[in-house]
Amino acid sequence: MEFTASQIASFIDGKIIGDADALIKGVSPIENGEQEHLSFIAQDRFSHYLDTSKCSVLIVSEKLLVRDSYNTTIIAVKDAYLSFQVLMNLYQEMMGRKEGIENGSSIHETAIIGDKVYVGAFTYVSEKAKIGEGTQIYPQVYIGKGVKIGKNCKIDSGARIYDYCVIGDNCVIHSNTVVGGDGFGFQPTAEGFKKIPQLGNVIIENDVEIGSNCSIDRATIGSTIIGKGTKIDNLIQIAHNVKIGENNVIAAQAGIAGSTTIGDWNQIGGQVGVVGHIKIGNQVKIQAQSGVNSSVNDKETLYGSPAISYNDYLRNYVHFRNFTEIVSRIKNLENNSKDKTNE
Amino acid sequence: MEFTASQIASFIDGKIIGDADALIKGVSPIENGEQEHLSFIAQDRFSHYLDTSKCSVLIVSEKLLVRDSYNTTIIAVKDAYLSFQVLMNLYQEMMGRKEGIENGSSIHETAIIGDKVYVGAFTYVSEKAKIGEGTQIYPQVYIGKGVKIGKNCKIDSGARIYDYCVIGDNCVIHSNTVVGGDGFGFQPTAEGFKKIPQLGNVIIENDVEIGSNCSIDRATIGSTIIGKGTKIDNLIQIAHNVKIGENNVIAAQAGIAGSTTIGDWNQIGGQVGVVGHIKIGNQVKIQAQSGVNSSVNDKETLYGSPAISYNDYLRNYVHFRNFTEIVSRIKNLENNSKDKTNE
Amino acid sequence: MEFTASQIASFIDGKIIGDADALIKGVSPIENGEQEHLSFIAQDRFSHYLDTSKCSVLIVSEKLLVRDSYNTTIIAVKDAYLSFQVLMNLYQEMMGRKEGIENGSSIHETAIIGDKVYVGAFTYVSEKAKIGEGTQIYPQVYIGKGVKIGKNCKIDSGARIYDYCVIGDNCVIHSNTVVGGDGFGFQPTAEGFKKIPQLGNVIIENDVEIGSNCSIDRATIGSTIIGKGTKIDNLIQIAHNVKIGENNVIAAQAGIAGSTTIGDWNQIGGQVGVVGHIKIGNQVKIQAQSGVNSSVNDKETLYGSPAISYNDYLRNYVHFRNFTEIVSRIKNLENNSKDKTNE
Repeated sequence: MEFTASQIASFIDGKIIGDADALIKGVSPIENGEQEHLSFIAQDRFSHYLDTSKCSVLIVSEKLLVRDSYNTTIIAVKDAYLSFQVLMNLYQEMMGRKEGIENGSSIHETAIIGDKVYVGAFTYVSEKAKIGEGTQIYPQVYIGKGVKIGKNCKIDSGARIYDYCVIGDNCVIHSNTVVGGDGFGFQPTAEGFKKIPQLGNVIIENDVEIGSNCSIDRATIGSTIIGKGTKIDNLIQIAHNVKIGENNVIAAQAGIAGSTTIGDWNQIGGQVGVVGHIKIGNQVKIQAQSGVNSSVNDKETLYGSPAISYNDYLRNYVHFRNFTEIVSRIKNLENNSKDKTNE
Repeated sequence: MEFTASQIASFIDGKIIGDADALIKGVSPIENGEQEHLSFIAQDRFSHYLDTSKCSVLIVSEKLLVRDSYNTTIIAVKDAYLSFQVLMNLYQEMMGRKEGIENGSSIHETAIIGDKVYVGAFTYVSEKAKIGEGTQIYPQVYIGKGVKIGKNCKIDSGARIYDYCVIGDNCVIHSNTVVGGDGFGFQPTAEGFKKIPQLGNVIIENDVEIGSNCSIDRATIGSTIIGKGTKIDNLIQIAHNVKIGENNVIAAQAGIAGSTTIGDWNQIGGQVGVVGHIKIGNQVKIQAQSGVNSSVNDKETLYGSPAISYNDYLRNYVHFRNFTEIVSRIKNLENNSKDKTNE
Repeated sequence: MEFTASQIASFIDGKIIGDADALIKGVSPIENGEQEHLSFIAQDRFSHYLDTSKCSVLIVSEKLLVRDSYNTTIIAVKDAYLSFQVLMNLYQEMMGRKEGIENGSSIHETAIIGDKVYVGAFTYVSEKAKIGEGTQIYPQVYIGKGVKIGKNCKIDSGARIYDYCVIGDNCVIHSNTVVGGDGFGFQPTAEGFKKIPQLGNVIIENDVEIGSNCSIDRATIGSTIIGKGTKIDNLIQIAHNVKIGENNVIAAQAGIAGSTTIGDWNQIGGQVGVVGHIKIGNQVKIQAQSGVNSSVNDKETLYGSPAISYNDYLRNYVHFRNFTEIVSRIKNLENNSKDKTNE
């Protein structure tokens, strides 16, 4: 798609300084501008790119503009960062939606497919599954029996949604994520481990986004729940019977063990592990790679494995880094003490 | 599926107290009972749900029953937990099996498919692969050349089984797990890393279950082996040439590096890392997030990175948590010592 | 495939001691030799297998040979390890290449497919994608809009390459890896997190290999870059806007957070986490499970979470292991000090 500077300015109510017909064919980060690309400057520390950027058009916050003309075409706006976001959202909307059932998909005759749905080739929709209006299901997806998916979702290629799982409206599930695989439940016996059937499901509420290659296991009985607005990065493990509240952010490669409950507005860092059967409150921050092994109150910030208060961990870790010196101070004290005893 | 209380009682040899015709359409965890659902009470601490549960039927251990009648229908049994398991297993059996070759699968003419096998749409079975009796292969699975899969296995949607790998009887492989990808072997040269061909395979013995999104790499030569009855959770890395014995349990996101050997009945926690070329004995427990970098004797329990004895780690970690206070005790001693010297 | 000892000797310019017609049907590691299999001995510590191996043919370094005849057929060469590699490479070349478009693939009419390309069944190639000469795309792969893939690549079953990503020549992408999924970018608002569109792409340069189940996210704008010759193991997270240089080796389950820059010839261990927005130089070694949270200079070796110098970490960890004893030494000093004060 191509746009002129004046078309772009009209979307974001900006004022053009320069060539209103300058042509835009792509977008660059400001550090690596290219000709016929658009970028933006919202902070003073990037102002020098006003003179050096190869971009044909720059969206710039008004307060950073000091001259009447520049080498490149400028679109002056109040807040260049916000305007750029608006533009990117518009652009994605223009690009994004697919519609219709592609040849080569396999949809069971009892499945219910809403209006304006896209189902890609090689996608398999099982009996009595229900796909809501406007949802896009890319090629090679597996939808199990009785699965319910809401409106305006996007399910990327290779995602697997197992039997009886429920997904709300406006959810995004990225490629190769598995929703509703069996929980890891086995009973030890003298002859080996006996599987405990995993007969529950997964419920994903509205506005949830889940990255690629995640595993969200179904509950043993009842439901594993991902609450409204929660965002989950890539390669994350959510075990059976976990309940996650609203508006949490969980970074890549974190893992939450079985039956743990997590409140709202928490931030869980990358590669964090949380043990099973505990309760994490609200507005908690867990630093990357931490291992949480007991329940956590609201608004705590944790670090370490096992995780303790973030500040305590850092303070103690400074001593750990000086441990060799600390031990030689003890050695000195012991020598002094011996000297005194021998006096 | 629907059942009456009396049908359920007959499966588990239970005694009905209440309405033998009470209808069951689903199952709830006891904490979140629903009408027309079944649940169970096996422990005294859940006895209060006898009076408050919304479930229409409860399976209850005899010893917890003190009255002649309850609000809900009761099925009295010796051990409610065991009876409930029996029931769940029955239920899964009733629900579970698929059979037949679906339209849209691609099966090479030289592949050998046993009786009562299910092959889902968009599954690809390569030349000379062999699928044993009663095995279910869900849609969108990839089966490479000469792969052998035993009887009564379940291979979930999106699993990939590469050339010449061997899977025993009664195995379950969940969605998007990759069995037999190339091991990570490269020879450094001045110009870059040169690939070392990975020509071995993976052998998975009977009764193994592997979760979703795991990577089990093929051996360079010979076989990577997962022993009988071992259970592997989600998102786990098993590198080339690893040999794992029988009845191990490995929790999510753990990783075992190349050529390591693991015995029987070990428990490996979530996010554990084990380095390559070491030997782990039998009945070892490795705490979550530990990093094991040397061989381990039978029955040890480990924690930490690098991992040491569990009890030592915890004891030392208590001191780590008090490190700031410990350093000020040293400071005090130094001050005292100086005072004395100055006296 | 079957070979005789003399055929094998001719490939690697070796001298036969024994039966030139000995038949080879497979390859074994030296520790587990099998009849009609080939193996090799390049180190003195394996010399005892000269007499005990069940292999029918052994490739052996000349210097290890002391007799005129052995039980098994020997192929004597200068360096048995190198000769074996040569053979394995030859073998893989003989086995490996597929060609042609399989029935049941879906290729958009505007896609450009080079000569000698393989496209497997159930693979989906979107509009304007371009696949270079000799590249093999296995079944069930997803190739998005405008994707460019170079020559002689291998894309394994279930890989997903999203819109506008670019892959160079001679690259290998293993099963179920996702290239170009959305970066994890959300703006917090009072009502919840608002998605920041991820409109950039991923550029993978020549000679890169990426293992199975990896997630390589597309840049917000611009490109996430994996440099020439870099090798990436399984289950690895590369976040949006990361730039990785040439000839790096990254072990399984490592994760690199957003916008971090990594130079050349670095070795990153398994389960390592690297925070976002930092810079790692060249020839850096990062020990498994470390957590790197600040920029790193050339040639450093790091360990720990947060990571410090490898030697410091190990030295300090020795004290950590003795922490209980160290604390009792302090206690002793305190008692002595008190005794003196009380004297």
